[in-house]
Amino acid sequence: MKGYTIGVDYGTNSVRATVVSCADGRELGAKVYAYPSGHQGILLDPKDHNLARQHPGDYLLGLEDTVRGALAAASGADGFTPAKVIGIGVDTTGSTPIPVTEQNTPLSMTEGFAGNLAAEAWLWKDHTAAEEAVQITQLGLQHRPQYLAKCGNTYSSEWFWSKLWRCLKVAPDVFDAAYSWVECCDWIPSVLAGVTHPKDIVCGVCAAGHKALYCDEWDGLPDKEFLSMLDPKLAELRDRLYDKAYDGATPAGTLCPVWAEKLGLPEGIPIGIGAFDAHYGAVGAGVAEGTVVKIIGTSTCDCTVASLERGLPDIPGICGIVKGSILPGHYGLEAGQSAVGDIFKWFVETVCQGDDAMHAALTEQAAQLKPGQSGLLALDWNNGNRTVLVDPKLTGLLLGQTLYTTPAEIYRALIEATAFGARAITERIKEYGVPIDRIICCGGIAEKNPMLMQIYADVTGCTMQVSQSDQTCALGAALGAAVLAGDAAGGYASFPEAQTAMTGVKPVVYTPEPGAQATYDLLYAEYRQLHDAFGGVSSQSDLTAVMKNLLAIKERAQ
Amino acid sequence: MKGYTIGVDYGTNSVRATVVSCADGRELGAKVYAYPSGHQGILLDPKDHNLARQHPGDYLLGLEDTVRGALAAASGADGFTPAKVIGIGVDTTGSTPIPVTEQNTPLSMTEGFAGNLAAEAWLWKDHTAAEEAVQITQLGLQHRPQYLAKCGNTYSSEWFWSKLWRCLKVAPDVFDAAYSWVECCDWIPSVLAGVTHPKDIVCGVCAAGHKALYCDEWDGLPDKEFLSMLDPKLAELRDRLYDKAYDGATPAGTLCPVWAEKLGLPEGIPIGIGAFDAHYGAVGAGVAEGTVVKIIGTSTCDCTVASLERGLPDIPGICGIVKGSILPGHYGLEAGQSAVGDIFKWFVETVCQGDDAMHAALTEQAAQLKPGQSGLLALDWNNGNRTVLVDPKLTGLLLGQTLYTTPAEIYRALIEATAFGARAITERIKEYGVPIDRIICCGGIAEKNPMLMQIYADVTGCTMQVSQSDQTCALGAALGAAVLAGDAAGGYASFPEAQTAMTGVKPVVYTPEPGAQATYDLLYAEYRQLHDAFGGVSSQSDLTAVMKNLLAIKERAQ
Repeated sequence: MKGYTIGVDYGTNSVRATVVSCADGRELGAKVYAYPSGHQGILLDPKDHNLARQHPGDYLLGLEDTVRGALAAASGADGFTPAKVIGIGVDTTGSTPIPVTEQNTPLSMTEGFAGNLAAEAWLWKDHTAAEEAVQITQLGLQHRPQYLAKCGNTYSSEWFWSKLWRCLKVAPDVFDAAYSWVECCDWIPSVLAGVTHPKDIVCGVCAAGHKALYCDEWDGLPDKEFLSMLDPKLAELRDRLYDKAYDGATPAGTLCPVWAEKLGLPEGIPIGIGAFDAHYGAVGAGVAEGTVVKIIGTSTCDCTVASLERGLPDIPGICGIVKGSILPGHYGLEAGQSAVGDIFKWFVETVCQGDDAMHAALTEQAAQLKPGQSGLLALDWNNGNRTVLVDPKLTGLLLGQTLYTTPAEIYRALIEATAFGARAITERIKEYGVPIDRIICCGGIAEKNPMLMQIYADVTGCTMQVSQSDQTCALGAALGAAVLAGDAAGGYASFPEAQTAMTGVKPVVYTPEPGAQATYDLLYAEYRQLHDAFGGVSSQSDLTAVMKNLLAIKERAQ
Repeated sequence: MKGYTIGVDYGTNSVRATVVSCADGRELGAKVYAYPSGHQGILLDPKDHNLARQHPGDYLLGLEDTVRGALAAASGADGFTPAKVIGIGVDTTGSTPIPVTEQNTPLSMTEGFAGNLAAEAWLWKDHTAAEEAVQITQLGLQHRPQYLAKCGNTYSSEWFWSKLWRCLKVAPDVFDAAYSWVECCDWIPSVLAGVTHPKDIVCGVCAAGHKALYCDEWDGLPDKEFLSMLDPKLAELRDRLYDKAYDGATPAGTLCPVWAEKLGLPEGIPIGIGAFDAHYGAVGAGVAEGTVVKIIGTSTCDCTVASLERGLPDIPGICGIVKGSILPGHYGLEAGQSAVGDIFKWFVETVCQGDDAMHAALTEQAAQLKPGQSGLLALDWNNGNRTVLVDPKLTGLLLGQTLYTTPAEIYRALIEATAFGARAITERIKEYGVPIDRIICCGGIAEKNPMLMQIYADVTGCTMQVSQSDQTCALGAALGAAVLAGDAAGGYASFPEAQTAMTGVKPVVYTPEPGAQATYDLLYAEYRQLHDAFGGVSSQSDLTAVMKNLLAIKERAQ
């Protein structure tokens, strides 16, 4: 008899808890809670649009509200009672580090720091640490190239060390008052486990490996000598952070009495290791060797796994390859495109001043076009290029327009551009021996736009499918908890077994159509010409500097 | 006491006659006549959208109607009477060849050929002779490179020999029945002069030199050996065409009694040599050494002159350099951009689905932007590139767009792109020793869009002015007639004297603003990178083939 687990998914504006049946992955009940602080849950600074923080107190309010709500919603269905819950898992955004006291309390929840923005959680999309990221990149390339090789040779302003260093510089009082810093995805499980000292937190390898330069190869976090080059205080802090980070085979702990009581759940059930939303989302969508899970939204996130046995070199331009970050026993690979849905939205809403009806009309017209028929070709770089060029200072390009080019042709060309961008990612991964033949998509665009799915199939040569669940992140977190609970308790003995039972795809399958594929092969060759020339891959191209020069001229013109 | 002359301007859809005061170039009266045949005066073939013909009978009806109407409109004003008219000049579209009988009658106005499209005038924008143009280009490059050097190494489907050869191939009966072929701009004056045999027509060097490969260097029209390579019948025809072509210092004849009677004008007044609208337009706008006249409409036509004394080599990419084609004693230089207003129209009306109000709104918003502020850069090739690349198979490009790029920014970038295209033309001409420091513009866009004029000044570094007359073609034709009439008769002794008195510019002057100029110099350098890479100037660039490859893929996809 299978049990039930709970997945709690912390998003950017709200948190969602869901009660999942381990038997088949079905959602029995769910509840969403919008963070009450700031603007849509985000604390902003009117003077600095790069700043984005969150109040950890919101996380705790949301945890209680959503879990209790989800339990209530599920009660009765399928003979469910809260007593049958055998585990709980959490995923969050990231990198979202929180400064905490020696008692594992967020600094902003202590006297003297309430309302201090530097003492809050530094949300993933906070970009105040741009300078620090550049410096970490430069120092890393010079002194620890092996660190940088793991993140596409560019350390991001969104990541752990950039943010901590920034805090140290602009709010030294906060930095000094913090005993330690904890990623949000590790902190929530630590609260559930009743951990009262940061050093006792069981941290996940997902955040550690993808954002904090953690790797077994060099004994965990970056060494003190390197951190001292940034600031000696960061080197000191290293001792108060974790020594080892764990994959999904290790629980973050068991549910403590206090939180068992608060949530109305059985004490002592296992808590899944903390991980980012995209990674548990990949698990919940059925990621496996040969299968990429692609979340298509405003941007995309691509996750896949490769068996540890095969060994895996650094893959240039693939920002994150971390042992165990997605599935135990596998390398987790993460890639992404900086803008996908955002590009279509920009074209329809900003350029054409249209609305959803125009999206629908253009989609219908674009679907009538044949591959190559418009003569257009675009680069999908309106928001830079995350993978494989890892260059935020690239910009968009549209080529081939005549006096007869229609909005529908441009719309389709932009969709095709994102498909070519997706192919550039899968090809790079495949070049290094990781097989990819299937892409499972999540997100509204994948469900609503069959034309896009067929174009992606034709361009990438992969079978395209859509995840059955539209809440794969929460499902993945719940699935991880089911594995930790184990077969005997009503969960599963392994991730593959749990995935087979609990995840699935919708019936529709998009397979590459040979004729279209042949035309797209030709177009992709042209895309690569532009990609390599403007992206700096062709070192002798005169065009490599064009986009950067324009940005420099733009900056001076402001 | 100065007299009056008449200018008759044959456009694509209508003809316009105007009575001009030689004293100051003022228009005393005018009349427009819309050609009654076909669709807006153009005979079309529903089965072939490349075909565009006109009925020469329309020209004659229009001649009588407009001249009589203009005289009536002018009567009374300024003490004017038709008896004071001292000359008449004509300009037309071209190349618009007309097959004629041995009596100088258009074939379509004779029995047996009425309604036969091949027997009508082949309008300038007829593109049925695309294959023939390619073959003439190939044969020319191989056997007579000196011919092709005069037209940018590409002979056009719009030009004289392409059209005649096409007729010979698809309507041999028409070709055989025609005694000769006459350019519309030569035929109308010949009618006014009462010429009854094609061999007696006094032809202008403008059409001959710019469209029929006529040049003093090789004894006039192309030699028979070359024409035989096309078709022996074209070589035979050469004897029945003109031997010599003349500039504006030679009249096309004097007004014959029959047409003097029909029009109500004095018999025997001089008739200006026939020339194309753009060239008489340049004269009427004040073209001179150092001054380019730019007609900005859907596309642009740029005309300037260079003293014969300096001598002038072939200038690569400048399609037409013809002795005396614009002003006697000068080389006439013609260049152009294949799309200017058409690009703005395409963006607003086709992409943004907007109207005139949107043009106005975008212009206002774009005017608020500083040079370089958008980070955008475009190529103005939506309709190919006429000068200096002479390549109709180039296409548009927009680069630098982000998720925040606005329609106004794109609109301005497109205007800037056309200004960069204009600079590429003036720079090429200047490189060969022809000075350019002033551009006089004609056309509605120049009058209505001060932002565009300022951008052109800042980009080209030239003073930009607007022609006082909005009917410069008719004015130029009338001016040419005033010079032929001579000073004693109430005209002028020379073109410069006539231009000083009869042409002028509006008070507003757009001068380059140094700050903007400096930024545009930077942007132009980037434009040239794209221009040279995609336009095939940088021979080692991998991108030269991209636009052509896309067109090839597009063709196969239809």
